[in-house]
Amino acid sequence: MSIDILQSKIRKLKTPIMVGLDPTRTLIPPELLADCEARLGVGLEALAEGYCLFCKGILDALKKTVPAVKVQSACFEALGWQGVKVMQEVLAYAKKQGYYVLLETMRSDVEHIAALTAESVFEGLDIGGERTFPYPCDGLVLTGYLGSDGVKPFLPHLQQAEEAACKNLFIVLRSSNRSAVEVQDLLSGDRVIYRAMADLAQRWNTERVGKFGYGELGAVVAAQSPLALQELRKRYDKLFFLVPGLGAQGGAVKHAAYAFDRLGHGAIVCVSRSVIGAWQESAGMDYPEAAQKAVEKLKSQLSDHIMVL
Amino acid sequence: MSIDILQSKIRKLKTPIMVGLDPTRTLIPPELLADCEARLGVGLEALAEGYCLFCKGILDALKKTVPAVKVQSACFEALGWQGVKVMQEVLAYAKKQGYYVLLETMRSDVEHIAALTAESVFEGLDIGGERTFPYPCDGLVLTGYLGSDGVKPFLPHLQQAEEAACKNLFIVLRSSNRSAVEVQDLLSGDRVIYRAMADLAQRWNTERVGKFGYGELGAVVAAQSPLALQELRKRYDKLFFLVPGLGAQGGAVKHAAYAFDRLGHGAIVCVSRSVIGAWQESAGMDYPEAAQKAVEKLKSQLSDHIMVL
Repeated sequence: MSIDILQSKIRKLKTPIMVGLDPTRTLIPPELLADCEARLGVGLEALAEGYCLFCKGILDALKKTVPAVKVQSACFEALGWQGVKVMQEVLAYAKKQGYYVLLETMRSDVEHIAALTAESVFEGLDIGGERTFPYPCDGLVLTGYLGSDGVKPFLPHLQQAEEAACKNLFIVLRSSNRSAVEVQDLLSGDRVIYRAMADLAQRWNTERVGKFGYGELGAVVAAQSPLALQELRKRYDKLFFLVPGLGAQGGAVKHAAYAFDRLGHGAIVCVSRSVIGAWQESAGMDYPEAAQKAVEKLKSQLSDHIMVL
Repeated sequence: MSIDILQSKIRKLKTPIMVGLDPTRTLIPPELLADCEARLGVGLEALAEGYCLFCKGILDALKKTVPAVKVQSACFEALGWQGVKVMQEVLAYAKKQGYYVLLETMRSDVEHIAALTAESVFEGLDIGGERTFPYPCDGLVLTGYLGSDGVKPFLPHLQQAEEAACKNLFIVLRSSNRSAVEVQDLLSGDRVIYRAMADLAQRWNTERVGKFGYGELGAVVAAQSPLALQELRKRYDKLFFLVPGLGAQGGAVKHAAYAFDRLGHGAIVCVSRSVIGAWQESAGMDYPEAAQKAVEKLKSQLSDHIMVL
């Protein structure tokens, strides 16, 4: 099972940390970008190449310590097709380096549109009788405002027997931003909306659970809402949680710990800027080294609160 | 104002119809695709070129009858960067032909990610001191599950005095798919969720209204929910409505009519497959001709229910 692969990697490295590859122009060290511009001329191609080298540098630096990465598609799409092209290269590179890889699109689609994404990302496009995977990854992160229709086309791919074909889907329940309350915390009957979304996620989840007790469908629950995490962990014991909002977004490590079960399984925290942008606060360190140090620091903080093995 | 430009085009052509450019492999006439493959070889590039020529053919055919088009990014993204590259070409072509152009991403993002999209799509990327617009368009269609944070970065661009810089944003309130009820129709206090979303949209809307009485922020409300349309039209008299769900998705024209105000303003219906795929049901017609006929038919049906001028 795909969710077991993720959890086995977490156990092996004793590190329940996913690093978000969310490059922006200001996160790329100026000398790296200058090199690209010297080679390719000033333009979108050079900027995209900067994103690509930067992400590969992070991937090289963390491959022995971090089990998983998440690629935020909007960061790359913002550069146009040149950005999407390098995103595909970064996804393939991350897979090749042995990472568990998520692609975050945050979309909510109607069924026939979701089916196109499921085909492209999970099933592969049939091009002249051969399967092509433009976006090699182990799973997608989506939002669920459109309900089951936008999720259904992905579900058969969560139930594949063949390990490489088996994928995960993560649905955003409670996000890490302040205004999440405006929609997600509205009360409907005896449930807030993120709980209604969790009930849907539970319905969408695979019946099959892996050796750690979790199904192939996971959920995003931010560290900003410790009460939500406690309640959701207790109530939805087969939903694996991805926990954003630490670091740059201000969530507390001790709160993130609520996402884990009593054996220390069932969740992974996700950090981006505080790792990939750590070089900005670390005089004398290059960006891969600063990222490593930031991961080590977070790992040590997490170990005070979570039983990892 | 940008929303006035859209409404002036609708008035001029007496056609409140937006055509969705949502290409899929089965919507491309086989002979068109075969031509591309003969030129470029079987592969993603040929398929993307097929999408591009197909969309340009539709745009050429409808430019004297249809005021606006909407490009669904997932359809193009499914082909990888080759698809995104032709999507950018299609957006630029549509703008050049004089259409009002929307880009539909259906994303909900946290603030710093939404800001990247706002910069790329609305403000333009500063590349070597010059502004580059990878995705030329007049507005975006987004979902709002993350609340205000995902919308705020776009709002300054809705308030630009210079006409070419002034943009629109459309927020999905009630979608056209069946499972929309699972989230959007949940009752919270005295409001269903799509009404709570409408209250947010109203808060986000510009104070400035145009000559037809509408602000720069619009909303998506499907023809499948006539009661919703009636209630929302009455209550949110400054929100311009984009109405999907007719045609292939089964919504009724007389229901879509509820989205319009008593002068016949304030809304546009959006159709895709029933226009761009009309050639499949029209023996002996090529796809541009079949699309034209489908638009004429829908226009005539709409004119029974809506005062257009």
